[in-house]
Amino acid sequence: MKPLSSFSAFARLFALGALLALCARVQAQTDPLPSWNDGPAKQAIVAFVKETTDQASPKFVPPAERIATFDQDGTLWVEQPMYSQVVYCLERVPAVVKARPELKDVEPFKTVLSGDREAMAKLSMKDLEEILAATLTGMSVDAFNAEVKKWIAEARDPRWKRPYTELTYEPMQEVLKYLRARGYKTYIVTGGGQDFVRVYSEATYGIPPEQVVGTAGGTKYGYGKDGKPFLTKEPKLLLNDNDAGKPEGIHLMIGRRPFAAFGNSTGDRQMLEYTKAGEGARLAMLVLHDDGKREYAYGPAPGLPDTKVGTFTQELYDEARKQGWVVISMKDDWKRIFAFDER
Amino acid sequence: MKPLSSFSAFARLFALGALLALCARVQAQTDPLPSWNDGPAKQAIVAFVKETTDQASPKFVPPAERIATFDQDGTLWVEQPMYSQVVYCLERVPAVVKARPELKDVEPFKTVLSGDREAMAKLSMKDLEEILAATLTGMSVDAFNAEVKKWIAEARDPRWKRPYTELTYEPMQEVLKYLRARGYKTYIVTGGGQDFVRVYSEATYGIPPEQVVGTAGGTKYGYGKDGKPFLTKEPKLLLNDNDAGKPEGIHLMIGRRPFAAFGNSTGDRQMLEYTKAGEGARLAMLVLHDDGKREYAYGPAPGLPDTKVGTFTQELYDEARKQGWVVISMKDDWKRIFAFDER
Repeated sequence: MKPLSSFSAFARLFALGALLALCARVQAQTDPLPSWNDGPAKQAIVAFVKETTDQASPKFVPPAERIATFDQDGTLWVEQPMYSQVVYCLERVPAVVKARPELKDVEPFKTVLSGDREAMAKLSMKDLEEILAATLTGMSVDAFNAEVKKWIAEARDPRWKRPYTELTYEPMQEVLKYLRARGYKTYIVTGGGQDFVRVYSEATYGIPPEQVVGTAGGTKYGYGKDGKPFLTKEPKLLLNDNDAGKPEGIHLMIGRRPFAAFGNSTGDRQMLEYTKAGEGARLAMLVLHDDGKREYAYGPAPGLPDTKVGTFTQELYDEARKQGWVVISMKDDWKRIFAFDER
Repeated sequence: MKPLSSFSAFARLFALGALLALCARVQAQTDPLPSWNDGPAKQAIVAFVKETTDQASPKFVPPAERIATFDQDGTLWVEQPMYSQVVYCLERVPAVVKARPELKDVEPFKTVLSGDREAMAKLSMKDLEEILAATLTGMSVDAFNAEVKKWIAEARDPRWKRPYTELTYEPMQEVLKYLRARGYKTYIVTGGGQDFVRVYSEATYGIPPEQVVGTAGGTKYGYGKDGKPFLTKEPKLLLNDNDAGKPEGIHLMIGRRPFAAFGNSTGDRQMLEYTKAGEGARLAMLVLHDDGKREYAYGPAPGLPDTKVGTFTQELYDEARKQGWVVISMKDDWKRIFAFDER
């Protein structure tokens, strides 16, 4: 390293700059989105990145302002047949009842304990809220994190028999990495629980907890018997991060309007609208689940079933066309869905 | 740049690594805290950084987990004789009354309009809350940001006749930069308004809006006459980022426990407690305002006046000693207070 230390400061800076420029060129020659077929969706992503990160572009965006937001369920990973967080809550019920035996014969806990899937499918939204409150609140933040971490490591999806964290869409993982490599800060903006997603977001998506915006409850600061302070998760809703709650949550947690937003359902409509309403180049994309063979098919196309989660209505499809949002067809745009798929 | 492009990939990586190592050595030889006298406070900061960023240290902290939080008023900039955000609100009253003339003869607006400082000093907390609600809510987020930006550029502190953003403490600016250079993500965690501070945080402290946690109100998503969506600031409190609200806000907005926290008043006590309760090396520091000549003197020392803002009680001082929080004496620890002070 001796010869290097004799460089003048200027020469060092120049050499560093040349190396960085070289690295950028080498990177540009490799396809950053190898799991995407060359179609309008891929082209829209690449064009957006070029337009906003090329210094010579009239729509150049300074690095500090490069924010991209992603819905999670159905956009980054599988949401069928049930959101994995709901599965978590249902599977936590026995432990909750063990700790609070008075709930054993009380609905909706009784039905969940029975394991009767038909009866469970009939539970109302109010029932579900009661289950969520009992399984997501009342414990310390640390205890909750430990429980979720354990569950995420052990739980398996019923169809692929794999951890839920392996059921992320490889093409979207590539978009996350591609945007980050171009100076974008990537955020998850999910209707799911913020605390839940934060447990695995870094390992699963490379997105740190502080870049996860989700439905969030309050916490209460208090002291343990040992005098140590801790936070307890309270059954008090601070942010319902769905629909209009998404742009509201983005303002609360990020404070800047995204330049790119990705979703897959009516719950993402306002986030996409808000993103596109900004000045300059803005990218809004919707994942359309039209691949019943490799994943699931549900959406506005005739013949596709209407499911309870991830509602992609005909109205949303029409708005996408009208507003210039790009619809991603899983069937046509994605060469493979999961990392474990054959290339 | 031709010779460089013939380097093998390995040689390029090696050269880059050597350059980075060299830069790190050059940096290490320069005092990162030149405005600090060499005393226990400076030593505590340097020791903490070494302990948590040296790979060989048993208390090494991975870069992703390096979070440091800073109170703003009285910790990063002057808070006397009045929080600048309160000055902003009082100075906005004439514009609010112009837009809503029915408030002209209604208290507390009438008193503020009179300019009678003695009467204004007697306004109750409820009066102040009414003024804050009228001046901080009811407008669009964009309109609010534009107003604050304008005010920050034009307003002058009565004592130094300078923009408030020049009244930041140079030694604390050095700590922010030093921590960032060592891989820490620096956050403001303020009792002040999150939206207010976010307007100038990047230019003033190098802290982007998404790293500002503060007292936050809700917003409401809606559409303008042109059909464009926008957010309106609502008079609905989501987070009171003072006292226990600071660790609660840190959990909500960051989701990780800080390794270092800096404050100056009883409102920061829980943030410091929470920080120190974590495992490994944790740094908690309190700025003591004991320099009436160069700044202001208010605090627990006998003879110092008790003021309404930035309460540093004897009890807080005693707890700091007991808990191993480091008290920063502005008088003894800081060579200079402001960037414009003579070196």
